[in-house]
Amino acid sequence: MKSKAVQDYYPDDVAHCYGCGKLNEHGNQIKTFWEGDETVSRFIPKEYHTAIPGYVYGGLIASLIDCHGTGTAALAAYRVEGREIDTLPPFRFVTASLQVDYLKPTPLGVELEIRGKIVEIKGRKVISEITLSANGEVTAKGKVVAVQMPEDMVKR
Amino acid sequence: MKSKAVQDYYPDDVAHCYGCGKLNEHGNQIKTFWEGDETVSRFIPKEYHTAIPGYVYGGLIASLIDCHGTGTAALAAYRVEGREIDTLPPFRFVTASLQVDYLKPTPLGVELEIRGKIVEIKGRKVISEITLSANGEVTAKGKVVAVQMPEDMVKR
Repeated sequence: MKSKAVQDYYPDDVAHCYGCGKLNEHGNQIKTFWEGDETVSRFIPKEYHTAIPGYVYGGLIASLIDCHGTGTAALAAYRVEGREIDTLPPFRFVTASLQVDYLKPTPLGVELEIRGKIVEIKGRKVISEITLSANGEVTAKGKVVAVQMPEDMVKR
Repeated sequence: MKSKAVQDYYPDDVAHCYGCGKLNEHGNQIKTFWEGDETVSRFIPKEYHTAIPGYVYGGLIASLIDCHGTGTAALAAYRVEGREIDTLPPFRFVTASLQVDYLKPTPLGVELEIRGKIVEIKGRKVISEITLSANGEVTAKGKVVAVQMPEDMVKR
C-alpha cells in the first residue's frame, strides 16, 4: 500500500496553500513522503512554468522547495513524537526563511524530484536542507527554516 | 507620461518567464520601475494565492522577490552604462541565489509593494536587497544575486 503524504492530513482549515494544499484547485498540490530518513516530493511543471524557454521558472523552484520544507518539518515533528501522520493533534508549519541556490538551469518537461534532509529540530523549529533534481541531476539546492504555525494564525 | 517597465523591453525570445514575462498569459507579469535610486514593482495576489486562509502564499512572495531582483539587476545594468532601457543590446538576468525572510504573515486582498536597493554590481553580477510590503508594513525581505544570462541559454 502506498503511504499517504503528510499534506493529506493537514486539517481542512489549513489545507488551502497554493503550493501544497489539497483544497486549492489552482495550486500545485505537492505531496511529501518519507523515504527512509529523507523526505521526497515529485512534481511535473506545466508548460507555462517557464523561465527562459526550455527551463523551469525559478519562482516555481523556490515554491517547491518552500512547501517541501514545511511538509518535511511536519513529517519530522510526528516522527519525533513517535506518532503516525494520521494521529491528532496535527502538525502544520510555516516558513520563517528560505534560501535557494540555482546551480544550473532546470529543464522543463520532466518530473522534478525534491528531497529533504533534516538538519536541526529545536522546539517549534525544524531546519531542512533540500535538493531539487531533474533527470537525476541536482539543479538547485535550498535550506528551509520552518516553524510550527502559531495557533492564532488560523481564522476560525 | 508613465515610464515603461524594464520587462516591457525584454526581447520576445526571453519574455516568457512565469513571473515577469509579458508573453506568459498564465503568469504574474510583474513590472519593475525606477523610483529614484530604488526599484519598485506592485502586485495584487489572486484569491487562490493563499497560504493559511487570509494570508499570501510564501512561494508567491519568493517568486515576486525573485523576479523583482532580476528586473532590478537589468535596470541597474542599463544605468551603469548610461543607457535607456529601450536601447540595444538588451540586458536579461537570471537568479543565482535567493534568500527570503518571512517577518510576519502577509495579508491577502491588498496590493503588495516590492522595493529593491542595489547593494553590489560586479561584472555580470548584481546583488539587490528587497522588501515586500502590505498596507505600508514590511512583511518579508530578501536578497537576490542575479547574473547576466549566458548567451547559450537561449534556444534560437
